[in-house]
Amino acid sequence: MLPMPSSTLRDSRFRVSPENADLLVRRYGTPLYVIDEAHFRNRIREYVDAFRSVYARSELSFATKANSTMALIAIAHHEGCSIDVASEGELRLALAAGVPAASCYFHGNNKSRAELEFAISQGIGHIVVDHFGEIEMLATRYAEITAHRHPRLILRLAPGVDPVTHHKISTGQADTKFGFNISDGAAERAVVRCLEAGLPLYGFHCHVGSQLLDPEAQRTGGELIADFAVAMRTRHGYSAEYLNVGGGLGVRYLGSMEPTPVREYCRLVVEAAQAALRGSGIEPILGQEPGRSLVSESGVTLYTVGVIKPVPAPGRGTRTYAAVDGGLSDNPRPALYDAKYEVERVLPQPAGEAATFTVSGKHCETDMLFEDVELPADLKPGDVLQVLCTGAYNSSMASNYNRYPRPATALIRTDGSVDLIQRREDWDEMLAREVMPEGLVR
Amino acid sequence: MLPMPSSTLRDSRFRVSPENADLLVRRYGTPLYVIDEAHFRNRIREYVDAFRSVYARSELSFATKANSTMALIAIAHHEGCSIDVASEGELRLALAAGVPAASCYFHGNNKSRAELEFAISQGIGHIVVDHFGEIEMLATRYAEITAHRHPRLILRLAPGVDPVTHHKISTGQADTKFGFNISDGAAERAVVRCLEAGLPLYGFHCHVGSQLLDPEAQRTGGELIADFAVAMRTRHGYSAEYLNVGGGLGVRYLGSMEPTPVREYCRLVVEAAQAALRGSGIEPILGQEPGRSLVSESGVTLYTVGVIKPVPAPGRGTRTYAAVDGGLSDNPRPALYDAKYEVERVLPQPAGEAATFTVSGKHCETDMLFEDVELPADLKPGDVLQVLCTGAYNSSMASNYNRYPRPATALIRTDGSVDLIQRREDWDEMLAREVMPEGLVR
Repeated sequence: MLPMPSSTLRDSRFRVSPENADLLVRRYGTPLYVIDEAHFRNRIREYVDAFRSVYARSELSFATKANSTMALIAIAHHEGCSIDVASEGELRLALAAGVPAASCYFHGNNKSRAELEFAISQGIGHIVVDHFGEIEMLATRYAEITAHRHPRLILRLAPGVDPVTHHKISTGQADTKFGFNISDGAAERAVVRCLEAGLPLYGFHCHVGSQLLDPEAQRTGGELIADFAVAMRTRHGYSAEYLNVGGGLGVRYLGSMEPTPVREYCRLVVEAAQAALRGSGIEPILGQEPGRSLVSESGVTLYTVGVIKPVPAPGRGTRTYAAVDGGLSDNPRPALYDAKYEVERVLPQPAGEAATFTVSGKHCETDMLFEDVELPADLKPGDVLQVLCTGAYNSSMASNYNRYPRPATALIRTDGSVDLIQRREDWDEMLAREVMPEGLVR
Repeated sequence: MLPMPSSTLRDSRFRVSPENADLLVRRYGTPLYVIDEAHFRNRIREYVDAFRSVYARSELSFATKANSTMALIAIAHHEGCSIDVASEGELRLALAAGVPAASCYFHGNNKSRAELEFAISQGIGHIVVDHFGEIEMLATRYAEITAHRHPRLILRLAPGVDPVTHHKISTGQADTKFGFNISDGAAERAVVRCLEAGLPLYGFHCHVGSQLLDPEAQRTGGELIADFAVAMRTRHGYSAEYLNVGGGLGVRYLGSMEPTPVREYCRLVVEAAQAALRGSGIEPILGQEPGRSLVSESGVTLYTVGVIKPVPAPGRGTRTYAAVDGGLSDNPRPALYDAKYEVERVLPQPAGEAATFTVSGKHCETDMLFEDVELPADLKPGDVLQVLCTGAYNSSMASNYNRYPRPATALIRTDGSVDLIQRREDWDEMLAREVMPEGLVR
């Protein structure tokens, strides 16, 4: 494996070194997303190896929604991942990154006809079909397209598993917008319809939720789609060639969180599927599609502190705010999911004695980012903070709220050098979509 | 006043007509933000008139964070509003809209030196100063700039009022990142420091929170800053020329919500301030800075339904999802604040018998937008929905999550014609910030 900088056995999250932070801040300013290439590659290799060691016919996909920066998609593909895309836009990023469309899986609960046409015209390898309307859309379309352009179809199933995670990111329960329910017979009817229509059904897919620290839900999900595959073989003579058990392994947003180690996680998921498949005569390729758990711990966000302000806080005495130069627009997860993060001062060093701060953003909104975090007591304007584990769902969910330009992303290369992989938005871009119609202001 | 289309006495929110919806969808596609110019102008006029009728020396500002589309800023300014900006980006939008910097108020709890320099170089009229560091930054700067470029300074105060609203958008309590606390003496020290430093202190500002349906908090806030102004006159001989009591009047996201009528609201706020000022010898200009309450009800979002999917929902029987072609990326408020909205089918008409649907987005995420809304029972793919009261905090908070291009905004002009005021993002823009460093994938 590549050298893993700044990591320990106990906490393997990437941290930027003070030397690199100094270089990065001077070169690109803050706020700045930073991804460590070696860390990201190692994480993928760890996953691929762990998965392959328990199941030879395994395939890892990178879910680009977690971070669709073009260079990161290219790295994931280079490391052997196929690429999950959930929109025409994500597919365009994958193509621009040099990924063949044949290596892409096209997801989505409401793909438009135009999106499907675009994907097919590019030679998309796999379409993860979500509903009956999509089957019919494809059935019509298949008559017209040449055989070598035929994408394989995978049915997204709702296995009816309620995972323990934040309700906004749980997706495997029966009551979900995603997929064909196993429990009400929709999934079986979808199989029958695909077979009738002569569609190239490749297999099944499920995804039970995200940021799961206990793999039980995924295990059950894997078991249920494997059971379903066996049932389809028995009842309809259909042998699935591919089963994807989704992603969702949690990451260490806080040091106190202990996600199941990747090796154990892969073993559990594979064992569950294998047990269900035993004796069935089906030997599908097993797929997983992590996003967050591949890239989140490989990234940090750098902010510069602008204001330190102690204020009276009824019931707790004083609260000391440390306002940074970003906020809700570059990391909406605290506001969206009450997500917690760990924050460290990276410049200057050393840290010294600690005190409790509430890190807020600079938006014209409460914009509380990280409440009650321990930072050096001598924290002052100009100091640089790093927020750990922000490689996923930060850059990909960033907005222009309050007309902040979206931050750049820098990549620390395996040789220790630094490259820009997503540049900061500029003012021309901020204004480019505005139109002043004639005669508006007379 | 201009004619107010599609409105009734009971519910004056803008709705797009089926004829206009048809035209708009064919011309610009969906998702689409739509703003009605006459509705927006009327709302501003209603506010200006109501405010002026109870207090002659009144000034209304438009808080651009609610919707910083350039054309809307131009309209607000044309209707006599000054313009609140909370970042360099918002100021740039105002300038591009033709607003003189002298008519702008520059807000922010953590303005960078570069932002302040930019604002001063453009001739910003007013700076709403948030903390002691900013006073010192300005004190240094004032020595160097010529007198006609001197912005007036307004101190943002934290009056210590806890409003009844969503905790993420309440900002007036003592425990806030914003402003100088009155209760701990910080506000008074800030006044003294400004006077000592010879800075052109213009007055005081407070803002207690957003989407307030009961004006009690604002009334109290107005009273407290007026009390403070009187105390500063008594203790330091300083006479405030300007008092801004912020914004925050709620809007009718749901028909059942009953925000205080603008006329009554203005009367309450002014009376509270006047009572506190009586006999003090101070006769300041009174300012208000609504954002949401000026523009939210003037806008709708149009979506096209893509999928209707009934699924088993434990404990409630069946849930029928209606998936639309947008979601979290164009309206993050349901996910951020559990915000509720009203949804109507606009095409085709008539509506007929109703049934209960859950409108979801198409993001690869739970992305539940509007749970349990009544829509026509015969709702089907291709139908067009309008979501009411989305003129604020939709376009301004939109992201590219899942690489969706951000929607266009159309303006229905006062003569009934339709213009584009913000065009849909294109694929070149989506890719423009990506950089593939050399040698990344060998």
